[in-house]
Amino acid sequence: MRSLLHASFDPACRFVRLMLAEKGLVARQVETGPGDETLAAHNPAQTVPVLIDEPPTGGEIAIAPAAAIAEYLEEAYRDPPLMPATSAGRAEARRLFHWFDGKFDAEVNALIVRKRIAGGGTGRRWGEPEPIRETADALAWHLDYLSYLVERRAFLAGDRLTIADLAGAAHLSVNDYFGLVPWADFPDVRQWYARLKSRPSMRPLLADRIDGTAPAPAYADLDF
Amino acid sequence: MRSLLHASFDPACRFVRLMLAEKGLVARQVETGPGDETLAAHNPAQTVPVLIDEPPTGGEIAIAPAAAIAEYLEEAYRDPPLMPATSAGRAEARRLFHWFDGKFDAEVNALIVRKRIAGGGTGRRWGEPEPIRETADALAWHLDYLSYLVERRAFLAGDRLTIADLAGAAHLSVNDYFGLVPWADFPDVRQWYARLKSRPSMRPLLADRIDGTAPAPAYADLDF
Repeated sequence: MRSLLHASFDPACRFVRLMLAEKGLVARQVETGPGDETLAAHNPAQTVPVLIDEPPTGGEIAIAPAAAIAEYLEEAYRDPPLMPATSAGRAEARRLFHWFDGKFDAEVNALIVRKRIAGGGTGRRWGEPEPIRETADALAWHLDYLSYLVERRAFLAGDRLTIADLAGAAHLSVNDYFGLVPWADFPDVRQWYARLKSRPSMRPLLADRIDGTAPAPAYADLDF
Repeated sequence: MRSLLHASFDPACRFVRLMLAEKGLVARQVETGPGDETLAAHNPAQTVPVLIDEPPTGGEIAIAPAAAIAEYLEEAYRDPPLMPATSAGRAEARRLFHWFDGKFDAEVNALIVRKRIAGGGTGRRWGEPEPIRETADALAWHLDYLSYLVERRAFLAGDRLTIADLAGAAHLSVNDYFGLVPWADFPDVRQWYARLKSRPSMRPLLADRIDGTAPAPAYADLDF
């Protein structure tokens, strides 16, 4: 059957889980990481996520990275569409997907989140301070940009749910687990995220836990 | 008319120039970089490349980053196709595009090439040594993987030219300008690159020069 090689708190993996759920596609989820032979066999780059699909046309396809999985799922399982129909709409949805997958990941996640999830806990040496202030500043800059978008649009890329929203929710959810997101300062983004959080596709993500690290109090709370 | 905001020696920009040329699409090429208002207006992430197209359906669309431009061009200008027709073929072409765009860029270009092209010259402080050995090791590892592919296939992703080859040629060409690629050790990759280098789409790239830095002797030589 279809399976997803993933890591529960990797934002790109969360994005793919959301996309699968929104399209009503079931996948066996296999937690994995660097050094895993199954991962290396299916993705020479040894990164997660990797989707191993058995398409209706037969055979087995391994797809990576997340950007390629998004294009594949949109081509192979059109209904419901998670990209707009127009060229301009698609360009906007893809631009924002890459905004999170590239820029947000490098400017925000790299500071704290990626170290904590890699370490399975805090992921830092005893006594080593975390860049709390830098992360807060970087997050505030991004939340400010997201505010600009959601003040003008119902969803990030326009008037319908797209891969841009799923990428945004995936990335913010991991930061939110660690209580890093200053929701009170960005009410419009909070309202957008509350709508995303209420979708059934988000439920499994909100149930994930990291051993030894409890989520921030409002992490799974739909009225945060 | 159609225009491309780019930087001549940025590998992702070179990829888009190759893709446009292979599809027979003319674009006004505008050299740009961070801080440019035109760039900021068309791409809030302020990265290059940005393609500003006037599609047959009317209007103007700004598309970024390179991965989104590749998908856009393939959808809007199908002929000649630069992605395979099958899901598996497309997944493989995209996987290898992202191999260069993400992994190769972080593991190879980040060491020397990105610093030199950002600095418009050597891009390093006087006396600061360059990571020559690390770059050679990283490049050798990647060339070894490319050898594995081209021993089995006419082109990187299969039996036809795809975005994977164009991404590979774009990234290797910049390293080649600086004489970093040990072609003699990887004859199969050299043979593949010689075929790519002979395509008309490569000619403008091979004519580019960086002020104050001459290319390696065989950079533009088709029989290197």
